[in-house]
Formats: sequence, C-alpha cells, structure tokens
Amino acid sequence: MSRREKIRQSTIEEIKAIARRQMAETGTGSLSINALAREMEMTPSGFYRYFASRDDLVTDLIVDAYNSLGDAMETADTSQPRDDYPARMEATLIAYRAWGIEHPVDFELIFGTPIPNYQPRDDLTKPVGLRSLGVIFRILADALAAGGLHPMPEHLHLPPRLHVGLPASAAIPPEAAALPEVVVYVGLVGWSRLHGLLTLEIHRQMDHFVSDPEVFYHHEMRSLMRSVGMLAGEKTP
Amino acid sequence: MSRREKIRQSTIEEIKAIARRQMAETGTGSLSINALAREMEMTPSGFYRYFASRDDLVTDLIVDAYNSLGDAMETADTSQPRDDYPARMEATLIAYRAWGIEHPVDFELIFGTPIPNYQPRDDLTKPVGLRSLGVIFRILADALAAGGLHPMPEHLHLPPRLHVGLPASAAIPPEAAALPEVVVYVGLVGWSRLHGLLTLEIHRQMDHFVSDPEVFYHHEMRSLMRSVGMLAGEKTP
Repeated sequence: MSRREKIRQSTIEEIKAIARRQMAETGTGSLSINALAREMEMTPSGFYRYFASRDDLVTDLIVDAYNSLGDAMETADTSQPRDDYPARMEATLIAYRAWGIEHPVDFELIFGTPIPNYQPRDDLTKPVGLRSLGVIFRILADALAAGGLHPMPEHLHLPPRLHVGLPASAAIPPEAAALPEVVVYVGLVGWSRLHGLLTLEIHRQMDHFVSDPEVFYHHEMRSLMRSVGMLAGEKTP
Repeated sequence: MSRREKIRQSTIEEIKAIARRQMAETGTGSLSINALAREMEMTPSGFYRYFASRDDLVTDLIVDAYNSLGDAMETADTSQPRDDYPARMEATLIAYRAWGIEHPVDFELIFGTPIPNYQPRDDLTKPVGLRSLGVIFRILADALAAGGLHPMPEHLHLPPRLHVGLPASAAIPPEAAALPEVVVYVGLVGWSRLHGLLTLEIHRQMDHFVSDPEVFYHHEMRSLMRSVGMLAGEKTP
C-alpha cells in the first residue's frame, strides 16, 4: 500500500469511528454528514471524496458489523474440540448473545429499526451477513454427518407451502449447502427463537418478568439443543 | 368536556398524528419538535403548552402503541368461543403478527431500537404494556383450569437460578397472576420465540431463507401449541 493509500485508509477508519460514536449517542437513524465532516475538520464535499453518499458509509458500517459478529462466532466455534458438536454449538450461541450485548450500535445496525431512507445493498451485505449463520449450519452439518443430530418428528412435517433454504454464497460452507431442508428449518427456528429472547433482553422488554436473562437464554438454548438430540434429555444424562 | 378542553384535546391528537408521520418518514429516533411546531404553525414554546417535553410526547405515543396492540389482541381473543382455547390462542398470536406488520411505527416504538436519550417511563407505559401479555396469560390460565394445557417435562425443570413471574398490574387478570411459575415460563418462551420470528421478518432478515414468512410463523405457532398440549400432535389428531 502506498503512503497516500495508507493515509486515505486511515481517514476512512476515522470517519467510521466517528460515525459509530455518533450513532451511539444519537441513534443509528440520525447520522449527520455535516456534523461528521465538522468533527473531521473537513467540508461536507471533502467527506464525499471518501464515501460517495451517506448510504455508502452506512453500508460499510453494516458490513463491518456483520464481520465482527461472524468473527466472534467463528472464534467461539474453533475454540472447541472439532468433534464436540454440543460444545461448539453452545459456545457459538453464547457468543451470539455476548456480541449483541457488547456491541449495541452494531446490533442495532444489523437487527434494529431499519435506518430511514437507507437503500439496503444486499449485494454487499449479504455475503458477510451469511457468515454467522454459516457457522451454525456448519456445526449442524458436522453433527448430522456424525449422527449427533436428530430432528424431532414435528419438524419433519413442514407444511407443503413452506420452503426454506440457504442462498448460494461463499459464506455458506459446502457441507451446509447440502443439508436437507428439515435441518435448515431446525437451524432457522433455533436462530429465530434465541434472537427473539436476545432482542427482547437488549430492548429491556424482559426486565419485568425474568430474574436473570442470561440464565433464561442458556436454558432456552439447551432446550433447543435437546429437542434435536444434540444434548441428552433430562432422564438420559 | 368544555369547548376549551375539546379544542386542547384535538390539538394534542393533531400533534401526535404529525409526530407519528414524521417518525414514519425519518425514524422513531429523529423526532424534531421544531419541525413539528412549524407544521402546526406554532412556536416551539407553543408546543410545550401541550407536552412538557419531547420525552412526554414519546411516552404518550408509546402508551398509544401499547393500547393499540392490546386492543388488537383482546379483539382477536374475544372473537372466538370462550372455551375454544386453541382457537383463542391462534387468533391472538396471529393478531400479534398482523398488528406488527400493519403498524410499523408503533412496532418500532415498542420493540425497535430504543430512542436515543429518551428516559423510559415504566410507571406510565408498563400498565398498558402488560395488556397484550395479559391476554395471552388469561388464555393459558383458562386452558390450564380446563385441563387443556400440559407443559412438557423439559419446562418443568427450570434451573434453580431462574425465576420468572408476572408483575402485579391491573393489566394482568387475577387468574393469570395465580399461574404456576412453569406456565409463566411457557408463556414467556412462546412470546419470545414468535417475537423473534416476527422481528426478523419485519426487519427483512428472513427474506433470503423462507418462501413465506406467514406460513413459517403459523407453523412455529402451532409447534409451540402442540408442545404444551394445546393442539393435538401429528399422530393424534
């Protein structure tokens, strides 16, 4: 990288750091290019030499957030013994919650209220957006291949009008892309259930009902894993 | 109500309608009292004769949103025969999804990214916020009393450190307040699971995976009801 290119790159990183701080203070929806340029001691037109539009900056921040989540989940997965599927799944799902709690701006960028008048760029965000689910589905695929996954009968009967699948993407490993539809369904249901708990926790909707949201999350996670045979049931430890 | 009081009330309603429209256009987080007052042909200080602060207006909008959700779910519940618990539960949970999709601003006000620098007023929002769960727990209480609810063994063993309960509130009917902890747990888990699906659907996170989010939601809803004996299983219709 040339010196010129390095300076440009470090300016871009500085812009993104200020944008993230601004979002932490005033919300993901109220990013102001004027305020941001002022803080950088730039003119607004100076800003546009680094990002063609506010939307381009937002897209970049969303890509970073997805990569941060993907990194956290991959690290959790690879920290466990390769053939201990329950340990890999638990570590990965616990990392999902920890990441959401520790990265409030990134969590809202991905999962919160959509940013007004922002045009989503799925072509840029989808490939990284799929990384986190890619980790989960790789564990499911490994567990299935080793006989450590047994979807329950209720899952085996998807209604005829319901079709689920993973899109083709470099973020979806080949063994996950080859999973039967019922396992994809199990993975999506598990994700949505835990995501529901986490988003209610982060948005302070669970405070009135639950003594300890972390214990609640862990209990729900283990119930899910038990329901597909990834953990032994109560009576067969 | 005096003529003076009527005029005041209709001005308040007009302010709230404009605030909701502004939020639909620029997000729940970027309500501008100046822009709102300008549109009302008021000075900002004129606005503050109706609401002491921006936060008071936001609190009022959140209360309205919760009441709108509570109304929708109560109407759905009472539209079904009193002793048909599965039909009441289905109608209520379908109303939850329909309300979220039809009321995007209200949904985000309650469940979306928290509004920056807004100080929650639980003393004012909690009593109406509990109405929607009150409906669900009343149906669970009625079903339990009639022998139409059978929480599964996995639910019966809450971890010792996990305590769940419904807060004392006029929105929680007495029969729901008296429910055993395990049934409260079942209700909260069911809510969080369906809420997870709905929030992922509304925030366009399910598009890449699921052919029809409505069918997915209905299938998950019925799986949940089957898991607590509110619907017959696949093999015992």
